[in-house]
Amino acid sequence: MVERRTPISIGECVRKVTQYAKNGKKETISLESASGRFLAEDLIADHNVPSFDRSPYDGFAIRSEDTRTATSHHPVSLKVAGEIGAGMVFDGQVGAFEAVRIMTGAQIPEGCNAVIMLELVNEFTEANQKFIEIKRSLNEGDNISFEGEDTTKGAVLAKRGTYINPGITALLATFGYSNVPVAKKPIVGVLATGSELLEVSEQLKPGKIRNSNAYMILSQIERAGGEFKYLGKLDDDFDSCFMAVKNALSEVDMLITTGGVSVGDYDYLPAIYDKLGAAVLFNKVAMRPGSVTTVAQMNGKLLFGLSGNPSACYVGFELFARPAIRIQLFNDRPHLKRETAWLGEDFTKPNPFTRLIRGSLSYDEGRLLASPSGFNKSGAVSSLATADAFIVLPGGTRGYQKGMAVDVLLLEDVQGSEWPWDNIVPSYRM
Amino acid sequence: MVERRTPISIGECVRKVTQYAKNGKKETISLESASGRFLAEDLIADHNVPSFDRSPYDGFAIRSEDTRTATSHHPVSLKVAGEIGAGMVFDGQVGAFEAVRIMTGAQIPEGCNAVIMLELVNEFTEANQKFIEIKRSLNEGDNISFEGEDTTKGAVLAKRGTYINPGITALLATFGYSNVPVAKKPIVGVLATGSELLEVSEQLKPGKIRNSNAYMILSQIERAGGEFKYLGKLDDDFDSCFMAVKNALSEVDMLITTGGVSVGDYDYLPAIYDKLGAAVLFNKVAMRPGSVTTVAQMNGKLLFGLSGNPSACYVGFELFARPAIRIQLFNDRPHLKRETAWLGEDFTKPNPFTRLIRGSLSYDEGRLLASPSGFNKSGAVSSLATADAFIVLPGGTRGYQKGMAVDVLLLEDVQGSEWPWDNIVPSYRM
Repeated sequence: MVERRTPISIGECVRKVTQYAKNGKKETISLESASGRFLAEDLIADHNVPSFDRSPYDGFAIRSEDTRTATSHHPVSLKVAGEIGAGMVFDGQVGAFEAVRIMTGAQIPEGCNAVIMLELVNEFTEANQKFIEIKRSLNEGDNISFEGEDTTKGAVLAKRGTYINPGITALLATFGYSNVPVAKKPIVGVLATGSELLEVSEQLKPGKIRNSNAYMILSQIERAGGEFKYLGKLDDDFDSCFMAVKNALSEVDMLITTGGVSVGDYDYLPAIYDKLGAAVLFNKVAMRPGSVTTVAQMNGKLLFGLSGNPSACYVGFELFARPAIRIQLFNDRPHLKRETAWLGEDFTKPNPFTRLIRGSLSYDEGRLLASPSGFNKSGAVSSLATADAFIVLPGGTRGYQKGMAVDVLLLEDVQGSEWPWDNIVPSYRM
Repeated sequence: MVERRTPISIGECVRKVTQYAKNGKKETISLESASGRFLAEDLIADHNVPSFDRSPYDGFAIRSEDTRTATSHHPVSLKVAGEIGAGMVFDGQVGAFEAVRIMTGAQIPEGCNAVIMLELVNEFTEANQKFIEIKRSLNEGDNISFEGEDTTKGAVLAKRGTYINPGITALLATFGYSNVPVAKKPIVGVLATGSELLEVSEQLKPGKIRNSNAYMILSQIERAGGEFKYLGKLDDDFDSCFMAVKNALSEVDMLITTGGVSVGDYDYLPAIYDKLGAAVLFNKVAMRPGSVTTVAQMNGKLLFGLSGNPSACYVGFELFARPAIRIQLFNDRPHLKRETAWLGEDFTKPNPFTRLIRGSLSYDEGRLLASPSGFNKSGAVSSLATADAFIVLPGGTRGYQKGMAVDVLLLEDVQGSEWPWDNIVPSYRM
C-alpha cells in the first residue's frame, strides 16, 4: 500500500530544520587564506583610523593663519623648515611662516593645521633655503584626515558570521589580524543512491543516467560555505545503503543523500531512518518540486534526504541544507535573500502547491525582473545552469501573469536573510 | 617641479588595458574541484536529455487506449505484466489491458504511452496475479518525460568563459565531464610599497599604518578568479623597488603594485617603469578616487600601479585589473556589471571628476537602491567592508539628489558586462 504523507508548509519545515541546526567550531587561519570564509568573532577596531591626523595629499603642511592675506596678486612666502616622508614623524615645532614638505599619509607636524597640495604652490630657493609661495588662503583643517574620522577605536566593524570579502580583509589587516578567527567549515557528507546511476566517466546505457546530483550538491555545499565529503553512489539495496548512512554519520557534521525518499518500492531512506532510530522531522513539503524532501535528525545531527530529481534536489538543498550550513558558520542571515521582482512570463495554470520556479534575474531600468531560466520540470537539469533565483508562486486556485509582483529568493547572494518565509503570498499588482 | 599629467576618461583607460589583456591557458581538473572556475571550452550536450522516454513518477506504465472508458463508477482493471526498477529495462512488449509497475526515472516499456501515479490506482491480487484498477481515463503522453525535452544532443549549454556554478556542475556530470577543461588561473603578483607600512602583525607606531592594501588586493584577485602571489612589502627605496618589480615580472602573468604612483618625492613607480622600458598606458584617470592609477605594459605583460590610498586602490583594481583577469579566464563579459539604481543620499557638491562612491545596494519593492556604504574619502577603509557596488556620479557642474537614477557597477556579481563605459551620463530623473 502507498504510504500517505501529510504535506507541511515550507516555512514550517525550515523551522524544524533550524531548530536542530547549531553553531559550529572556530579555527584560526592566516589572513591570506581568509577570503570567502566567515568570521567567528566580531571584528573590533583596536585603534582609531587614522590613528593620527594625517595628510591625504602630497604637499606642504602649514599654519592656516599665515595664509590669511594670500591672493594670486599678493602671495605669501613660507620657509620650508623640513620634510617628512610617509611613515616619518617631524620632530620640531613649526613656527610662524614656516611650512613642512609632507607626503601622502604622513602625520601632520606639531603646530600645523592645514595642508596645501603640491600642485598649488611655487617652490623657490634663496641663499640655500627653500621657500614656497602660496596664492590663496586656507582654513584650519583644510586637507587634513583627522584621527578617528574613518573609524573609532572600539567600534564593531563586522559581526561574527560575516562573509569575508575584500573590504573585510582590508579591515582585518588594518587592525592587526595576521591570523583570523573563522568558522570551521562544516563537513557535509554526500551519498547518491539509485541503481539507475552511472559514474560520470561511464558510457550511457539504456535506462541509465549519469550521477549528476551528487556533483551538483558538492558545488552547492561549496557555494554555501561548507566542505564536502563525497561518499560515492550506491545501488538501491537496503543493507548497503543502511551501512553507508550509518558509517557516514560518524565522519560528517551533516549528511545529504539524493534519491530513495519517495514512496516507491526501492525508496529505502524512510526505512533506513527508522532502523537507525533517526527522528523524521518531515517527509512531505507543500511545494513543487521537491515535495518528497525528507529531513531527519539523530543525536542532533541532521540528515537531508533530497529527491533524486535534479531540480527537486537542487531546491531541497537551498531551502533546507543551506541554512543549516550557514548557521554552523555563525551567520545570522542563513536563508536565501528574498526580494520582490516582476514576473517575466505567464504561469496561467493554477497549482495547489507553492511552486519554486528556477529563474534568471535581470534589471529593467532598476526594476528587478524574474523569468524562468528554461525547461522547468522537476527532473530538468538544463534550467539550473542559468538559475540565480527561485521565483516563488504560492499555491492556490489561480495563475500568475507576466508583470505581476512576485517573491524571489536569490541564489548567488552572500547577504542572505534572517527569515524569508513569513507572508509569502501572491500580490496581484500589475 | 611637479609633473603635469593629463587626465584621461575611465572608458578610454579601460580600453587601453583590454588591448593588452589576453586569453590565458587551459588546464584539465577533476569535476569535484571545478566549482567556481571558468570553462575553457563550450559545454556541449553529447546526448539528448532525457536520453529515453521515462517516467517522472512512481506508478504504472499503461496504454492510454485501455483507459478510455474508465470512471470512478466503472473502473478498468489492468493485469500487471511486470516491474521495472530505475535503471532497468523491460524486455517484453506490453499488450492490451496490461500494465507495468515503473519507478521514477525508468524507461517507458515498449507498447506503453502513459503513466498513472501509484497514488491513483487500487492494487489487488486474483489467483496470484496482480492487477490494478484505474478510475479515470488518460491521454497518450500523460506523465511521460520525453526523450530530448530537457536538452537536445549537440546544444551548446554554456559558452567558454562561463563561471561554473552548481547548475553548470550538474550539466558537466550529465554529459560525462569527469574531467573538466577550465581556464588556468592567471598568477597575479602583488607588491606593496611605502616606508609607512607596518606588517599586519606589528604594533602600531607613530606615523605608520599597517599594510592593508596588499591583503585587500589578494582578496580581490581571488574574487575576480585569479591566483595571487604575494611578493611582500618594500620601503620607498628606488633600487630595491626596481629589483623587486623586475624580478616579479618573470614569475607572474601580471603585476599589481600599491603605492608610489603619485607625484611625490618618494613615488618611484614612474621612474621604475621608465628604467624597465615599460610603456605607460596612462598615469592619470579622470576619476575620484584613484586618479593617480597608472598602468604600463612590458612585452605584453600588464603592470598595474594602484594608489596607496585604500579606497583608490580598491577602485583601481576593480576597474582595470579585474577585466584583465577575467579575459585570461576566457570570459567575454569581463567588466563590472552596470545597472540603474536610485540614489539613496544627496551629493550636492559638484565635482569636475567622475566619482565612484563605494555603495551598498538594497531593494525597495523590486527597485534597486544605492546608498554610500560609509565614510567615502579616498583614504577610507571602513566603507569598503559593506560595499557591493560603485555608484557612478559623472563629473560636472551640478550635484546629485537622493532619488535620482544613477549608474551603479556591481562588485559581487559573477555575470559581469561586456562594456559598461559607454554613455555613462547623469540622468536627472526623479
